[in-house]
Amino acid sequence: MDERVREHAEVLVDWSARVEASDDVVLSVGPDAHELAVAVAETLGERGANLLATYGSGEITRAYLRAHDGDFDANPAHELALVENADVYLSLGGGRNTSATADVTGDRRRAYNEARSEIRDRRLGTRWVSTVHPTRSLAQQANMAYEEYQEFAYDAILRDWESLAEEMAQLKALLDEGSEVRLVSRGTDLTMRIEGRTAVNSAASVAYDSHNLPSGEVFTAPSATEGEVTLDVPMTIRGESVRGVRLEFAEGEVVDYDAEQGGDVIGEIIETDDGARRLGELGIGMNRGIDRYTDNILFDEKMGDTVHLALGRAYDACLPDGESGNDSAVHVDLITDVSEDSRLEVDGDVIQRNGTFTFEDSEV
Amino acid sequence: MDERVREHAEVLVDWSARVEASDDVVLSVGPDAHELAVAVAETLGERGANLLATYGSGEITRAYLRAHDGDFDANPAHELALVENADVYLSLGGGRNTSATADVTGDRRRAYNEARSEIRDRRLGTRWVSTVHPTRSLAQQANMAYEEYQEFAYDAILRDWESLAEEMAQLKALLDEGSEVRLVSRGTDLTMRIEGRTAVNSAASVAYDSHNLPSGEVFTAPSATEGEVTLDVPMTIRGESVRGVRLEFAEGEVVDYDAEQGGDVIGEIIETDDGARRLGELGIGMNRGIDRYTDNILFDEKMGDTVHLALGRAYDACLPDGESGNDSAVHVDLITDVSEDSRLEVDGDVIQRNGTFTFEDSEV
Repeated sequence: MDERVREHAEVLVDWSARVEASDDVVLSVGPDAHELAVAVAETLGERGANLLATYGSGEITRAYLRAHDGDFDANPAHELALVENADVYLSLGGGRNTSATADVTGDRRRAYNEARSEIRDRRLGTRWVSTVHPTRSLAQQANMAYEEYQEFAYDAILRDWESLAEEMAQLKALLDEGSEVRLVSRGTDLTMRIEGRTAVNSAASVAYDSHNLPSGEVFTAPSATEGEVTLDVPMTIRGESVRGVRLEFAEGEVVDYDAEQGGDVIGEIIETDDGARRLGELGIGMNRGIDRYTDNILFDEKMGDTVHLALGRAYDACLPDGESGNDSAVHVDLITDVSEDSRLEVDGDVIQRNGTFTFEDSEV
Repeated sequence: MDERVREHAEVLVDWSARVEASDDVVLSVGPDAHELAVAVAETLGERGANLLATYGSGEITRAYLRAHDGDFDANPAHELALVENADVYLSLGGGRNTSATADVTGDRRRAYNEARSEIRDRRLGTRWVSTVHPTRSLAQQANMAYEEYQEFAYDAILRDWESLAEEMAQLKALLDEGSEVRLVSRGTDLTMRIEGRTAVNSAASVAYDSHNLPSGEVFTAPSATEGEVTLDVPMTIRGESVRGVRLEFAEGEVVDYDAEQGGDVIGEIIETDDGARRLGELGIGMNRGIDRYTDNILFDEKMGDTVHLALGRAYDACLPDGESGNDSAVHVDLITDVSEDSRLEVDGDVIQRNGTFTFEDSEV
């Protein structure tokens, strides 16, 4: 077995999910994530955890959803009982076709997800972590050769997470103390209020309220957004290519938008509900192991020298206890490159210029 | 998709497991049983059942068991809760290597199984059915080409089960009414008591107390076995080739044995415990879709013109309520060909000669 697969498994089990002896672990395995699953099973065995493997196949989901009449039972007892009794939920993405469910209607998908909201909430109540095994289909989506993609993915995943967490803590401190963020770049001059909000140091570990591997971003929940922003990183959203999105905000809401490509999708998203017109997240990518866009949000939004903004739902972890932030049925991330002609200010002080943080400068 | 895969799924869901709307179904998927799993998911969706897919991989089991220290937690809560809340448990066998767990020690395996006895009992309390997807590794084990093996497997699986159940009911009636069975063949003259025992008409459906697809046998729990038997169908037991087994019984117990090949394994089995010296099952194969041995007990023991005897544990379904039959940690089937020079008698009346039943004759 490729030694990197074994290291990936150990980072996932030990750093990310903090698995201990006797933890009841659900391991969701994508059809092409088998090799990673074998390495994770070995690591779980070494730790004395209890393993149940589930099968996360888009083709099975598609077949089931299309055949069903759409009137789904709420929270089936067997699956609910499984997640209620799980301590840890590890999801190993990796199918044979990233478009495996492309012909399932949005309505059918929503009905299924809504019927399973308690299962989802219980799963999010475990020490859950999502990762992917680098597969050929993900390489294809990234427009990369398979071995090239493997190198890319492991560069992103096999970081010195402890040291990155320390670095990101400096940004978190700046955001936690600040009241207003301003982002200035080509086609962008945007201000957001962040007073009273708590930034998450997303260091790929449940110990940091972080549930993605790779991670490597600091994010918070902004409000009262004003100005305009150009989000230039190309991505696929709802099966459509989206590129060069421009959003204009007044009193916290999108008042105008256009896009070089995929403007219809942006319009659709904004029309979802009131919350979809407001930002739920300001995220700052700090994973410098990610050096290019691969049309996979798990990686793209963590890329160093990028900032992302999400239309829609805010994360509770960013809000004071008991306060609920922007609510919406959607959470759609859009990304902008800040490596050139860019600066990020907190309360008027520049904290990042052209991708380099001031605390990095001072360390040099 | 091969239409036979779809038919297999429908037989499994409708005939075998009797799935109804809102049933909570666990679908255990072998790594190479993906295509059958997709067809089963579609059928379950059509029936309005609730699907949770688990991943049944020998390689994952091997990695986990070898890495673990062997001191397993008893009945982990998440897996126990899953099976406790399941109505139906469908197991789709089909890996890439039938020897995937060959280097896991017997001790480690036993410790794992013993720690999970309540999970097993709960699973056996559902409407459970085991089947296999014809894979390349099963073709290899059968010494057959892949497409040849597919034809073989579907001939066995896609029967007219209703009509076979009616045919087998005639044999069940003869055994239920009888007190003593005698099997006479080359190297065989064996008598067994079956008074008060109930034969199972194993018609590949939970409605018939039958949990294998394919099935197609009638079996009961004999006692007081006397005489000798030669079991000439070659098979692999515990990784060893076994062939030409001869057992001699007195007062229900094996008093002598030998084998052309694999005698050591037979000795090992007989030494397991007291129950392993006695028969737990007399089974009569009636699936004429199975026309050759493929070294897979799921198929071999159901083959038409064969009789099998199991050393060890008897099935409760054959015994009067509250009565427990032969008990043992093992249940090992051995098979004999009765297509020539053979007869089967119940209370002195011949019921089968050279594989043909008297009730078949009278119908001709």
